[in-house]
Amino acid sequence: MPEAAQNPSFAEAIHESFQRQKFMAMIGAKLMRVVPGEVEIEVPFSDAISQQSGAVHAGVLAAIADTACGYAAFTLMPAGSDVVSVEFKLNLLAPAAGERFVARARVIRAGRTLTVCSADVVAFPAELTVATMLGTMMRR
Amino acid sequence: MPEAAQNPSFAEAIHESFQRQKFMAMIGAKLMRVVPGEVEIEVPFSDAISQQSGAVHAGVLAAIADTACGYAAFTLMPAGSDVVSVEFKLNLLAPAAGERFVARARVIRAGRTLTVCSADVVAFPAELTVATMLGTMMRR
Amino acid sequence: MPEAAQNPSFAEAIHESFQRQKFMAMIGAKLMRVVPGEVEIEVPFSDAISQQSGAVHAGVLAAIADTACGYAAFTLMPAGSDVVSVEFKLNLLAPAAGERFVARARVIRAGRTLTVCSADVVAFPAELTVATMLGTMMRR
Amino acid sequence: MPEAAQNPSFAEAIHESFQRQKFMAMIGAKLMRVVPGEVEIEVPFSDAISQQSGAVHAGVLAAIADTACGYAAFTLMPAGSDVVSVEFKLNLLAPAAGERFVARARVIRAGRTLTVCSADVVAFPAELTVATMLGTMMRR
Repeated sequence: MPEAAQNPSFAEAIHESFQRQKFMAMIGAKLMRVVPGEVEIEVPFSDAISQQSGAVHAGVLAAIADTACGYAAFTLMPAGSDVVSVEFKLNLLAPAAGERFVARARVIRAGRTLTVCSADVVAFPAELTVATMLGTMMRR
Repeated sequence: MPEAAQNPSFAEAIHESFQRQKFMAMIGAKLMRVVPGEVEIEVPFSDAISQQSGAVHAGVLAAIADTACGYAAFTLMPAGSDVVSVEFKLNLLAPAAGERFVARARVIRAGRTLTVCSADVVAFPAELTVATMLGTMMRR
Repeated sequence: MPEAAQNPSFAEAIHESFQRQKFMAMIGAKLMRVVPGEVEIEVPFSDAISQQSGAVHAGVLAAIADTACGYAAFTLMPAGSDVVSVEFKLNLLAPAAGERFVARARVIRAGRTLTVCSADVVAFPAELTVATMLGTMMRR
Repeated sequence: MPEAAQNPSFAEAIHESFQRQKFMAMIGAKLMRVVPGEVEIEVPFSDAISQQSGAVHAGVLAAIADTACGYAAFTLMPAGSDVVSVEFKLNLLAPAAGERFVARARVIRAGRTLTVCSADVVAFPAELTVATMLGTMMRR
């Protein structure tokens, strides 16, 4: 559902907010794409974010998918808004093996208070979707 | 649903598996309680796991809740089992502010292939539940 | 989380609303218990609500659990509120076989705008939990 | 993810199974489209499936979306399989007002045991998506 941004400086606001997310820095995540209704966040593989079998931990996949969903929702909110996650559901589709992982979030429906988003987490170079999220974000 | 463990060395297996989770080490998580049907994991607050407003990132809450759910499911599985997360849903109930955060997972229903678990993440010292998870774990 | 009702006539409002739910009448559902933070709805077994294997359809379980969650949330809302479901997740735990099915919902956290609820659907006479829900309700 | 059907008579099996779903008959649901990886189910509006404000009950939307997901998963399963719902999450996006409602399910990932599906429920004539589901189906 591509929609027009209401906040002309949504991209600056998102980049500034992302910089303040120390956890995103800890896992090496980068903001890759910020357009109205869509945000992408990438994290490179590192041993430090792995679980017992060597794949990336589901919590890291959840973290980048949730963050991308929150910012995707934010792109369509009025200036001065703040966004928080209400809830999300993550399905793990395949072991998260690869060199880098991209969470691609898009707005499904933007409401006045609540915005519903989905995100896929794609592993590269295989370009395999390893997880998919459906979540609810709230404007404050 | 308290049930008997089928694997006499489930606790050792869980501790050994947890040691191999580099991401749990990265965020400072510790395995606190491992009994049949219930597992607790604690993470201390640190700036490094925070999001833009200073609270703990939802991805970290998801990580400890999901890990606790997986191990709670594992406590009731036969020896030689491996556990993977199929999916989880996390509701964020309050900002995750505090000194330490404990994910308390319990088995709701243990099946032959799938086990359904829930987990609360409780912030201390306030002892406030900041997130709750309902998830599905799979034996392999 | 037992809390005080703010609306002295919450129970009357819920009974009146339930009467207007034609779908609840269609499946034979009855409102059994309405107290602050908790609501129960019961549906008797009938062939008409079954799926292909003769058990009660998951949509019927979702319907009574969601309705009970919505009213449980409503019990703690101020007078004049209206409640809508934002989202819910339902885990099916066992085939829904039995004579009657009771959805027992309770409020996990009541916020100003959003209320998080859980519900179990219990089959009788076995008294077996056949489904569990975690959902988000909104005040309007 | 379009995939080849393994069961040459998947469509007949689905139509035959659907006929046995008495609840689908009760709400007037019809199977509209059955192709590998995708299934559509339609339900006409009637007062009998409405909630207190006159819109279609979320449980009915869940019922047709879940049923469509289950059959979409079934289209890609080997002959002799049986499908059950493990869990689903439904986000309600808009009041379900209209003349007819179509649940469009598609397979996101088909595994040996578990298949992940999504479904949208679209209201006509407005052609507005009123709900979206992400769920997990299991082969038996």
